[in-house]
Amino acid sequence: MCEANVYMLQEDGEKTLVMEAVDKVIPGKDELFMENIFGERKTIKARIVEMALVDHQILLKKADDTAE
Amino acid sequence: MCEANVYMLQEDGEKTLVMEAVDKVIPGKDELFMENIFGERKTIKARIVEMALVDHQILLKKADDTAE
Repeated sequence: MCEANVYMLQEDGEKTLVMEAVDKVIPGKDELFMENIFGERKTIKARIVEMALVDHQILLKKADDTAE
Repeated sequence: MCEANVYMLQEDGEKTLVMEAVDKVIPGKDELFMENIFGERKTIKARIVEMALVDHQILLKKADDTAE
């Protein structure tokens, strides 16, 4: 299976796990919907920073700091 | 390997292949950088519509029609 783990990138560079084994990701305006292979769903205010699919890793940042 | 194929979703609902075997995806302001497992790179004006990782599929739309 090729699902990925989704992490939130903190201000200090640390990563915290948001959801593991994520299959579907649908970005919205200021939020992100995700669903994992267990059928669990989450919508959080975040944007995608980077995806590294071979490493099964999706990095997010809080949507608040999108104003750059 | 858990790379994905990236498709552009057309107005008529058709999908056209943008790049296959994509490993890294980095969204920018109005554009999307991607790199596949062969080291090929592409930056296109698009946004992610949906990712279905278990299906190895990432759907994009042209960045122009983001105004909803």
